[in-house]
Amino acid sequence: MQEQEHQQWMQHALQLARHGLGLTSPNPPVGAVIVLNGEVLGEGFHEVAGEAHAERRAIADAYARGNGHLLPSATIYVTLEPCSSVGRTGACTDAIIQEKLGRVVYGSTDPDLRHQGRADALLQAQGIEVCPGVYKDACDHFLRSWFHAIQTGRPWVTAKVATTLDGRMTRRQNFWLSGVETLRHAHQLRLESDAILIGGNTLRTDNPALTIRTPLQTPSPRKQQPWRVVLTNNMLSLPPMATLFTDEHKERTLLWENVKDFRVLLNELYTRYGVVNLMLECGGRLLRRFLEEGLVNEWMQSISPMVGAGPDFLVPGDFLPQEFIFQRESLIECERDIIIRGTLG
Amino acid sequence: MQEQEHQQWMQHALQLARHGLGLTSPNPPVGAVIVLNGEVLGEGFHEVAGEAHAERRAIADAYARGNGHLLPSATIYVTLEPCSSVGRTGACTDAIIQEKLGRVVYGSTDPDLRHQGRADALLQAQGIEVCPGVYKDACDHFLRSWFHAIQTGRPWVTAKVATTLDGRMTRRQNFWLSGVETLRHAHQLRLESDAILIGGNTLRTDNPALTIRTPLQTPSPRKQQPWRVVLTNNMLSLPPMATLFTDEHKERTLLWENVKDFRVLLNELYTRYGVVNLMLECGGRLLRRFLEEGLVNEWMQSISPMVGAGPDFLVPGDFLPQEFIFQRESLIECERDIIIRGTLG
Repeated sequence: MQEQEHQQWMQHALQLARHGLGLTSPNPPVGAVIVLNGEVLGEGFHEVAGEAHAERRAIADAYARGNGHLLPSATIYVTLEPCSSVGRTGACTDAIIQEKLGRVVYGSTDPDLRHQGRADALLQAQGIEVCPGVYKDACDHFLRSWFHAIQTGRPWVTAKVATTLDGRMTRRQNFWLSGVETLRHAHQLRLESDAILIGGNTLRTDNPALTIRTPLQTPSPRKQQPWRVVLTNNMLSLPPMATLFTDEHKERTLLWENVKDFRVLLNELYTRYGVVNLMLECGGRLLRRFLEEGLVNEWMQSISPMVGAGPDFLVPGDFLPQEFIFQRESLIECERDIIIRGTLG
Repeated sequence: MQEQEHQQWMQHALQLARHGLGLTSPNPPVGAVIVLNGEVLGEGFHEVAGEAHAERRAIADAYARGNGHLLPSATIYVTLEPCSSVGRTGACTDAIIQEKLGRVVYGSTDPDLRHQGRADALLQAQGIEVCPGVYKDACDHFLRSWFHAIQTGRPWVTAKVATTLDGRMTRRQNFWLSGVETLRHAHQLRLESDAILIGGNTLRTDNPALTIRTPLQTPSPRKQQPWRVVLTNNMLSLPPMATLFTDEHKERTLLWENVKDFRVLLNELYTRYGVVNLMLECGGRLLRRFLEEGLVNEWMQSISPMVGAGPDFLVPGDFLPQEFIFQRESLIECERDIIIRGTLG
């Protein structure tokens, strides 16, 4: 019974956390809800790095609703273990202790070694009950890209590809492969990403803007356009009037020449630009390199219902050094296209 | 109200017709049910060419159930216009007239010029009410391969392909691409086909049996193994001990050398061997030729969740002379694979 109630409120907190998707990097998106006798006293989510964490926002929300006096007997549900070290905003455990909350229920354990498991002891020492690991699998899955970045120092890399049934990436006369609804899913992924990477070939051929235009959800007004990362072997070969160099977001365009070590590049994107979610919108050649290096974590492919469309292949050449097996997480029929999404093992 | 009743019984007749799928060629699979006051008096389907048609089997079934005396006021629902010319089994219109059935409701109009529309006048002249075209779209769709064969003199061609996400047809070390459940769908398509075509390369590389082993439905005891058609440029290059030449079904293997005109080949398969449904299980090169000639009508592709699996492509080479756009009819998640099926426009 309590188990069920815990799950239900943690799902609620996870829904709140989703509002932060694509906004919080390098921090994780986190949601929190404070509950007493089945009623919400206050709720919140972490929105932008440097601002209040989910727990503090839920507490502030409880005060704003006139529920501040009820906090001492209430339970706070939070998708991630509350932080216990002072960053830019003060430790969340301190806020919880200060408000004398009765109980803390959380999902994922913080992988950051400065915090990991410390919250339990700190809170329990103040007589606060702690229930860790509730709805943990769902919370961990939701935070997988952030965990990956913390643990490897590199962003979670999602390859976005659009192909025909026979694996071609282009059509005659540059007609678009994907339908309008399918493009909205691609823009949604941009909305949830911190950066989008292409190669010089794609820049020259498609002159893309790589901006968020028609996502499935209305973007938060706080969402910045993703970084637009261009890898090239020859900077001088890029057209200086390309959209990425001239549009209103041109300061969000990053250019790298002759990258030898993709791991170093990815580490720089994470540490210097706070990129936790990187989306690949490059062509087959560059994608093959990311695959060969074992750097692709997730895959989103739309397949358009046609064959014989073009001469390009997703991954030209011979066998890759290993096969990449895909764990399907979703399959959507999107008008005439299908969209398949999953993680690469 | 009557409309709804008609539809319901026609669906019932169509279900009966499905039992004949893959058995009746060169005849169409047809179902019939005789109904009085919402009760089934008798039902049947056409099972094997040369034997009784659906209408005569439904009448015989009504007699077997002791309902023969009720036929004169009953309605017969049949998925296809009753035949009006005497073949091996006598015209069905004659049987209906002889039994003095009160009403005939049918779905598709017979495309055979010997029959087309003749049934209406013949039956009405005997005072039998005729309702043509009930549930016509579904009946026409069900009979599409037979219509195609009648109209073109060639079998309906369904390409069966198994690929990776990037359109490869092979894996390292000849591991199978598809999962066990996916193979059952392929065997089901074999069950519904009259012949399966491969090229000499597939014979040499895979030494397939092309027999029906694990279909989704239990095969009728009357189902023969499909014809196994091999196209080669050099008969002498084929291994004489290949399964297709030595197994218990070897008399069902047909071999063609140096076929120049695929239309002539297909016409021969239809007129000489009664092949209405032809399944392609060939490799990319031969499939490309069938596509280029515009001879592929339907497409069934399983996509396995992996990338970088092998050096082969579904359709090697440059742009095809035209794109083939696919009308999706079904999309199935089949364990880790997906199966997409549709018709090519």
